[in-house]
This record gives sequence, C-alpha cells and structure tokens, in this order.
Amino acid sequence: MPPLEAYKRQLPYTYALGLYPALQALEQAPHLVSRVLVHSKLSGEGADALYAACAQHKIRTEQAERLLKKLSGKDNCFAAAVCNKQQHDLDPSGNHLVLVHPMDAGNLGTILRSALGFSFLDIALITPCADAFDPQVIRASMGAIFSLRLSEFDSFEAYQNQAGPRKLYPFMLSDDALPLSKAVQHKKSPHSLIFGNEGSGLPAEYATWGQSIKIEQSDAIDSLNLAVSAAIGMYVFSSL
Amino acid sequence: MPPLEAYKRQLPYTYALGLYPALQALEQAPHLVSRVLVHSKLSGEGADALYAACAQHKIRTEQAERLLKKLSGKDNCFAAAVCNKQQHDLDPSGNHLVLVHPMDAGNLGTILRSALGFSFLDIALITPCADAFDPQVIRASMGAIFSLRLSEFDSFEAYQNQAGPRKLYPFMLSDDALPLSKAVQHKKSPHSLIFGNEGSGLPAEYATWGQSIKIEQSDAIDSLNLAVSAAIGMYVFSSL
Repeated sequence: MPPLEAYKRQLPYTYALGLYPALQALEQAPHLVSRVLVHSKLSGEGADALYAACAQHKIRTEQAERLLKKLSGKDNCFAAAVCNKQQHDLDPSGNHLVLVHPMDAGNLGTILRSALGFSFLDIALITPCADAFDPQVIRASMGAIFSLRLSEFDSFEAYQNQAGPRKLYPFMLSDDALPLSKAVQHKKSPHSLIFGNEGSGLPAEYATWGQSIKIEQSDAIDSLNLAVSAAIGMYVFSSL
Repeated sequence: MPPLEAYKRQLPYTYALGLYPALQALEQAPHLVSRVLVHSKLSGEGADALYAACAQHKIRTEQAERLLKKLSGKDNCFAAAVCNKQQHDLDPSGNHLVLVHPMDAGNLGTILRSALGFSFLDIALITPCADAFDPQVIRASMGAIFSLRLSEFDSFEAYQNQAGPRKLYPFMLSDDALPLSKAVQHKKSPHSLIFGNEGSGLPAEYATWGQSIKIEQSDAIDSLNLAVSAAIGMYVFSSL
C-alpha cells in the first residue's frame, strides 16, 4: 500500500479522526474502511469495540502515533479510520437536500447530521463548495456522512438532469416567498429543499424554478445560520 | 481610563471584534459602548458608518493597532467596540429560552442569533456554562446578544424563583416525551423552552417539572446538534 498522506481534496480516501468517528465509520460503512490507525495509548471499552469491529470486518489495524498526530494536529487523537471516498447516485424517488455553494465545513457537517436525523438521505452539493469528505466535516457530521448518498454537481442544471421530476422548494428571504408553515401544508413529494450559500443565499432566479419558501423570522436579524435554516426546513417537511 | 486587557470572564466589559460586530453593537446597544478601537487601515463604507455612529452617540474612537491584533489574534481585525457587560432581569410575562450548562461558545452564539430571530428575547443560562460575553459568542451571535435580556442563574430553582409562573417545556429524548408537532398544538404561554448540555442533555428529573418534548428524529443519529434543536423548538413554538 502507498504511504498515507495528510488529507487533501484530491485524495481518493479520507480520515475519520478520533475514536468515536472511527467507530462510526466501522459501524456504518465498514466496506469503505481500508485500515485503522491506532495509538499505543488507545485503551478502554471504545478500544475493545474498535478492535472487535476490525476483526469482524477483517480490517487491518496499524500502530501510527506520528501519523495520527500529523493528521489531527493533536497529541490526543488515538484512532483514525482510513475511508475510501464514494460518490453515489441520488435516489430519483427520494426527497433531496440541495446545498448551493455551502462554504463552511462545520456548518456542512452539522447539516449532514440533521439530514440523517430527518431522513433526507440524498444530498446534492453544487460546486464550488466545502469538501464534504474533509475530516472536519466528517467529525462535525458525527459520522452521518457514511449513511448518506452524496453527489456533487457543477451546476443546478446538472443536478436537475439527474434528479428526476420533482417539486423544488428554494429557501430564500424574498417578499413573495411562502411562509414555511403555510408551504408545508401543500407539500408534494418527491421534493428537493434548496438552500444557498451562508453569506449570499440563493440567487433570485431560483424563485422561478419552484415554490420559494421563507422561514418566518423577525426583522431584528439579517438571516438565520445556514445549518439552522436547513434543519428547520427538513424538520418541518419530514414531521409536519 | 484604565488600560484595556485581553478578554477574560471577570472583566466588566467585553469586545465586539471586527467591523460588522462593532457596528452592530453601536446600532443595537450604543449605551453599552464605552469606546471604539480602530486600525489605521480601516476604510470604506463600513468605516464611514462606524465613525458616523460614534459621532452620533459621542463615543470616542482610538487608534489601537497592537491592541486589535492582541485581542483578535489576527492582522486583519480593523475595528472593535468596547462594551460594558449588562445582566438583565427577565420579563416574567415573556416566553423564555433556558439553557442548562451549554458549554460550546459557537453553539451559544448561534442559539442567541436564532432566539432573536424567533423573538425569544429572554435567555436564562444555568451555570456552569460558556461565557455569553466571550467575544467568540458575540461574533457567532452576529450581535444578537445586544438585543436580548440575558441572565445567569446558579441553579434551575434559582431561575424558577425569578421567572414567575409559567409552563415549562424541557426538551429531552425520553420515551414518554411528547413529539414536538403534537406538543405545540396545546402550547400555553408564558412558557420556557429548556435545553440541556451538548453532550448529556437534561437530567431525567426535568421531565417531572413540566411537559417534556422530543423533536421527532430518526434512530440513525444519537441526537441533533444543540443549536439545531433549540432553533427548531423556538421556530415551532413561535410560528406554528
């Protein structure tokens, strides 16, 4: 096997850094884990679970103190799973979450965790965007990324060509957008909830491609945090 | 005036670091701003707005490159408002957000931004908890902190003694908690939405003090991010 490198976007693999993220990778996507790095100080119940999972799935463990420190930048990162990246085709009959140019890795991880929680299992990312396989995203997603179908597209049009016929709901703060609590009463499936960039939101043209929705909020704030907006949209569409 | 110090919790003042946070402090709480620090490189429309606001409120500006760098740890922090901290009495007739031992500063700032957006203007923090006046919280709150009434309490009992009679809604993932979409149909005001710590949630005893609520979510995740949970709770209670 070639030597492992510090993470960068072009690599065909990524790292679930830390004992808990590594355990999640082993539990949710053992077929993607090529090996597991461990520190000599790794011990306790979590360590037992890690070794048991590796034995069960015939995954090699390998002591790698220096590499763990280099990858994590920390002295107390005691385990990491090396995971092959996988792009998926989206399920054309499922409901999708579409993120247009999300740039904040922490936000993106939190959004993926919420998406799994609200059973939005198909995620479209319109590039340029944060790297969903960045170890920071994997960590913030609490491993959710391993249970989702993720696919990157160069443009919204490219997404639409693959997504199949569906109702589009762009979330934006324009005056003619429907309040979320009203819009959800007439929801149609399959649908795509579409959210724009953290700073700039969605371009106005998205309003012409579907039923635009605004989350009711006071004028005292400019906007909600993107991870908050996406979670509210997914919660309301999945539970109400 | 005594020399300004690097931020620490005991100080009677804090810093809104950066041009936008400083502008927000001047706009939303000029009475709390004692002076404004500026960098010689500060220029443009934002700078004009900053100087205009300082002139309007008779607030002194002072060139302080080295202090700005020391406070922010960055070379590109060109402005900061020095703000006196203020504790407020909560409005006993209002709806409250109660956070029990929130420990993550970024989460706390995001929650305050959402609280302002959903018109939960009274925020109780049960200590120990992250410092709401930490410059990182102020930044993540996008200045929302200056428009809210914040109060810290040593215990939930101490909060209850001041809060006045009200309906309590602790959010927890116990089996007998009511799904949020059902609970909100019978909501009573004034009320308090109560959320626990990021890792451990609320202790079980909270269920006996009010109507416990769970946000409907898949078993595929352990829990939602705290800032996400609080935002969903506040959105549903304020908009549905």
